[in-house]
Parts: sequence; C-alpha cells; structure tokens
Amino acid sequence: MFTAHTPELMDDLRLRWSRMQEALRTDGADALLVATNVNLFYTSGRVFMGFVYLPVEGTPWFFVRRPVGLQGDTVADVRKPEQIPELLRNVGVALPRRILLESDDLTHSEWLRLSAVFGDAECADGSALLRRCRAIKTPYEIGIMKKTGSRHAAIIPQYAAVYEPGMTDQEWSVEMFHLMLKAGSLGLFRIAGNSMEVFMGTVLAGDNGGAASPYDFALGGAGLHPSIPIGQSGVRLTDGMAVMVDIAANFYGYLTDCTRTFSIGPLAPQARDAHQVAIDIQHTIAAAGVPGARCEDLYALALARAAEAGLADCFMGLSQKARFVGHGTGIVINEQPVLGARSADTLAVGMCIALEPKFVVPGSGAVGVEDTFLVTPNGMQCITPCDPAIIEL
Amino acid sequence: MFTAHTPELMDDLRLRWSRMQEALRTDGADALLVATNVNLFYTSGRVFMGFVYLPVEGTPWFFVRRPVGLQGDTVADVRKPEQIPELLRNVGVALPRRILLESDDLTHSEWLRLSAVFGDAECADGSALLRRCRAIKTPYEIGIMKKTGSRHAAIIPQYAAVYEPGMTDQEWSVEMFHLMLKAGSLGLFRIAGNSMEVFMGTVLAGDNGGAASPYDFALGGAGLHPSIPIGQSGVRLTDGMAVMVDIAANFYGYLTDCTRTFSIGPLAPQARDAHQVAIDIQHTIAAAGVPGARCEDLYALALARAAEAGLADCFMGLSQKARFVGHGTGIVINEQPVLGARSADTLAVGMCIALEPKFVVPGSGAVGVEDTFLVTPNGMQCITPCDPAIIEL
Repeated sequence: MFTAHTPELMDDLRLRWSRMQEALRTDGADALLVATNVNLFYTSGRVFMGFVYLPVEGTPWFFVRRPVGLQGDTVADVRKPEQIPELLRNVGVALPRRILLESDDLTHSEWLRLSAVFGDAECADGSALLRRCRAIKTPYEIGIMKKTGSRHAAIIPQYAAVYEPGMTDQEWSVEMFHLMLKAGSLGLFRIAGNSMEVFMGTVLAGDNGGAASPYDFALGGAGLHPSIPIGQSGVRLTDGMAVMVDIAANFYGYLTDCTRTFSIGPLAPQARDAHQVAIDIQHTIAAAGVPGARCEDLYALALARAAEAGLADCFMGLSQKARFVGHGTGIVINEQPVLGARSADTLAVGMCIALEPKFVVPGSGAVGVEDTFLVTPNGMQCITPCDPAIIEL
Repeated sequence: MFTAHTPELMDDLRLRWSRMQEALRTDGADALLVATNVNLFYTSGRVFMGFVYLPVEGTPWFFVRRPVGLQGDTVADVRKPEQIPELLRNVGVALPRRILLESDDLTHSEWLRLSAVFGDAECADGSALLRRCRAIKTPYEIGIMKKTGSRHAAIIPQYAAVYEPGMTDQEWSVEMFHLMLKAGSLGLFRIAGNSMEVFMGTVLAGDNGGAASPYDFALGGAGLHPSIPIGQSGVRLTDGMAVMVDIAANFYGYLTDCTRTFSIGPLAPQARDAHQVAIDIQHTIAAAGVPGARCEDLYALALARAAEAGLADCFMGLSQKARFVGHGTGIVINEQPVLGARSADTLAVGMCIALEPKFVVPGSGAVGVEDTFLVTPNGMQCITPCDPAIIEL
C-alpha cells in the first residue's frame, strides 16, 4: 500500500478490503479489478491511473501507470493492463477463474480490453458490489463525512452576506461558489452515471424552481445554457421569491449535501407553510430511519405526509417530479441507497443519507431543506447542523 | 428538431448530420444511436436525457426521456430505449442491420442494454466517428469558439489584479476562478475519458510545476488532496517562482484553452529564456500547421526546437513528460487530433487546436504558453489573442 498513507487510513483500507472480500466470497468471485477513479480512491486512498487487483483472499495489488514514483508494499509499475497476469504469477498469486469488472463505470471499450486480460476467465459485474460497500461508511469515512458536514454547515449562514439587492440568481451563486472555494472546498462534484452533470450545485429562484431538467436531481432548473441545462437561469431576484441554494461541499474527496431556502423579502404564507411541512417530513423520516428501515417505506411516509398537508401536487417538483426524497452520498453525490418508490434497500448503520423534502410553490418558488444524516443504531443523526428556517434577505 | 433553436443553429445541425451521414456511408452502417451528453449536445444542440437516432439517409429522430415538454419535428417522448424500434416502425423508418453505438462513451452496462434494442442488428463503435466529426468545427461552432476565445483572452490580464503578496497558489486560483465565473463562464470542464478529472483548471507554482499527476494533461501538479491529485498544491507564492495559470473558459458549451505564465518578482534568466523558446515553438508550429500537416511531424518539430535550445530534458515535464504538444478542443477539452508522437492524424480546415509548449525549469517552475488556434487554409490563427509575455507580479 502507498507509503504516504497514515496508519489510521491504512487500518481503514484493510477494513474496506475485508468487506469487499466478504462480498466477493458471497458472489463466488476470485477477484475484483478496479480501474475507475471513484473506486480507485475508495480502495487505495488516492486517485492514480492504473488498477487495484483485489483477490478474494490475501492482499490487494496496486498496478500504477501514472504518476511515476508511487511507492509501497504490493505497489508495482505497469504500462498496460495486459501485464497484470504475469506480474501476479511472478509473486505467486493465482489467476482468477471468475473476476469482477466495473460494468457500470468502465466504458464498453475499456471493459472489452480488461475482460480479455485474464484469458478465458469469466467476467461479471463488480460495480454493484462496490456501490454496496461504499454505501456503508467505515469509521475513517464517517470521520471525514462529519468533518465535511460540519464545515459545510458553517458556510451556509455566510451566504446571506454576499447577497446584494438587484443581483441575478447567477450573480449570487457565483459569490456563494466563491465562498465555498475560499473555505477550502476542492470544487469537484463527482456524480455516478454518465448522464448526470452539474457545476458546484444549483441556485433556484422563483419559477425556475419548477423548471424541468434532463438530470435526475431532486429539482432541476432551466440552467444558463442548453449545454448544461440545470440550475440558475439568470433571473433577477425580486421580492417574494423563494431561492433554494443547494451547493455541495467537498473538502476531502467526500461530498455532503445541504440545501437551505432563502427569500427575497417575506414569502407568501403558503410557501412558508410548505417549508415547515418539509422540515417536519425531514424530522419524521430521520426518526423513522433506524437500521433495517425499508427505503421505499420511508419514501411512502414522506409522500403521505405531503399529501396530508394537501401538498402532494407540488412535492418534489411540478410538471416533472423526482421519485425520491433522499439518497446516499459520499465519494459521489448519488451513492446508494435511494429513498424512492422502487427501492429494495434497507438502512444500515454507517450509511450517509441526504434527506431532501422539497416543494415547488407556484408564485413563490422552491422551498424545503436538505441535510446529510448518518444512520446510527438509534436512528439518523444530522451531520450538517444549521438552522433550517427560511433565511429572509 | 427542437423548436427553441434559431434558424442559424438549425442549418448548422443539418450540416453536422450530413457529415455524420457521410461517415456512416463510408462505414457501411445504417444508423448511429447517440446517448451521451457530449454527443447529444453536438447532434441536437442541447443536452437532454434520451437518444438521437441518426439514419444514414433522412432525418434524425430525437427520443426524449427528460425533461418533459421538449417539442419539435421528429421529437418524441420515450420512457426507455426498448421503445425506439416500434416508434421508428410507426413512422416508416427501416430498422438498422448495422448500427453504431458509442463504445468509448457508454458504460459497458449501457452498451449491453442498447445493443439488444435492435434485435440481432450488428453493433459497432460510433465514438470514433463522432470524435472525427467533432474535430472539424462547423461555421456555427467556429463562431462560438472565436467568441469564447475572445472572452477568454480578455480575462487573462485581470488575473494580476486579484493577486496579493503572501497568497498561496490555491488562494490566488480561487480568485481567478471567481473572475472567470463572474465573466460568465459556466464553469463545467468537460473531458473525454473516464480517467481525466480537473476542477476549472490548474495553477502551478514553483516546483509543483514538475510534480507528476495521474492525469494525462500537459503538466500535472500534486494537487491539494489525494482524491483529486492535480493542480495547485497549497504552496505559498514567493519571489522567483514561475506560476503557470491554465484555466479553461466555457461560455457556450465549448472550451478554449489558454495558459499564461506569471512570476513572483523577476524570474531567473534560464526560465525567461525557456519561456521565449516556448513562444517561438508555438509560432513555429502555428506557421507549419497548414491543412494536411501531419500531427506527429508538428510534435517532432516542437521536440527538435526544444532540443536545439538545449531544453529537451525539461520540455513538457521532468520525471513524467507529456508526449504531446497540442490537442483539439471543443465540447471537451481533449478533442481530436493530438499533436503527439504516435498520431496518424493530419490537420484540416476547421480544427481548433490548443498549442501548449511548456518547460519545467528547476528552481523556477513551469513556463511557456498555450493558445487555442483555428486551422485555416493559410495556417493556424490564434483565437485567444493576448500578450504571451511573462506577467511579473
């Protein structure tokens, strides 16, 4: 393993490997080959260009194409993946008969190449296994998520200070991005899935809160340009508008999600009421979110509470609705599980879940909250603690 | 086609389709199915979730999953790709016997699903065809590249105004990112290839200019965190340092590349001389870069000039060197062609190429320039015009 790592990270990586190896055993696979950045970071503690080879028993190997000079036990330089079998043979590692590759992460061309590396070994999907492992954070990862959430929550109250009357949503968003970067965010917003894209987050003002986007986020927004049709639309912020600020934080390679609603002057009572319903729904789900809770039940609970409040029509969008109320977060913003209608998942201790009940109130805009929660033995603990009330500008 | 498009964009899209159809004819394919954002934007003028079906003859079809409400001729809603054959049959479009899919862009799982949509039709790669088409910009795209380059060039002289003595590379970079966003950049930095990542660009100060990164950019930098080991390292900017600022611009979904070298106080003569050699190499390549010029010859020319100046050892890196001196740019920063050692490509009118001869001078840092050029019948025309001299802070 890379010599630069701390003993604490080393111990944590060993725990991750043992969890993945247990999943490999259950699957009947002999090994997992990791080749994409999110999973390289998860399995090795850093991004490099190359491969992690994790056998079902024993120590993983780290085959590095770039950068030059990475050192450590079971770290070897490699020019191309076709060298891996010989390198493994040289150190006495048996070649796999069944190997898992990242089917949901590798391009088809990459998959074809890697699937030929181990001769006629059977190749099957490893992406789902990795997603399941990543969903349950290790102690080191929980520490990072908490530190990230805490720094994230500390930035939110500063957003109001960089607002100036007469700004557009885009002008204000740029100042908030600036704050987030000055506070140390790395900026990078990693998302699983080819079709998902966003810059650092979205700022949805007024009617733009209900604008449909191509992307599978909770709410969309029209965006500034058809090349990236999501988020702020360039509208000028005027009295009575709700402005929903959903900017992710990434200080250590892990993302927390936290959304707060601002208003330009006072909001209409209907919007204020809907906001309070969103807060109540979040509390309800957090209390019900004990280990073993079924994700689809939690979503149904949120839907039922929205309906009870007479707000089903504007819950999670208007013409286009998100069919979930929460999602895992971590190295990517959309980790498992999804708290949605057709989810077969259940909560487990160590999951980090963004709960984001949101309403789009015609005439006002998007209201609601989002926080990142850690699933503990006693239920969900908020790790982005800051006042959920509407912040009037 | 989408009703929101201007007549000018519509005409340009027709030109793109006809070029792709000519390439389909050459390939012997009956159709191309596009499903990833970069190519959806290229073929339809906007990002949506869904598919473009381009037959070798006739009009393309646009099958939209999201957002709701997109309208236009040959635009149809679709829930899943398996509906496409029936929708095509209903409008009298013959089903393909050979269809191209984006092998280098789709995940393996996506490819498997899409390859089953058309029964036993033969499936082959369409990514290479799309890359070749995207490499040669249409008139509309050339207009966008020029506007982007011009706005990009106008921002560079402002970078010095947000520098303050005592800053780290990261602190200064955040202020420059802020400037770029305030000027209207969308921020999003699209890169082809799974393994490439960066935020908005890199700022390389002093020795960090020579630090090896996992990514295949011209120069790397250690980065701030092992989760994204590229770019600024957090070093404090001190006298005698060269600071290379390479931040992309994206105002309309197309990226221009422009790098300028700054210095904290005066640079050592060796670094100043190397910078001038870089400028000279860029001029030499631009003059030799006529239509038909072979990309590997242009790279060899750059290498030869660096060697003549006695600077071969520090050309394009130190311990880890980039094996190219230029690359196409457009919707992604790494469009075709590559001006590198093993490139079989030749230049053609309408290509947009970033030329980036750079040196890493031990004790000073990275020096050199990068500009985006348009290949014209008379050679390469710079579209990011601003003073290439070292800017002393």
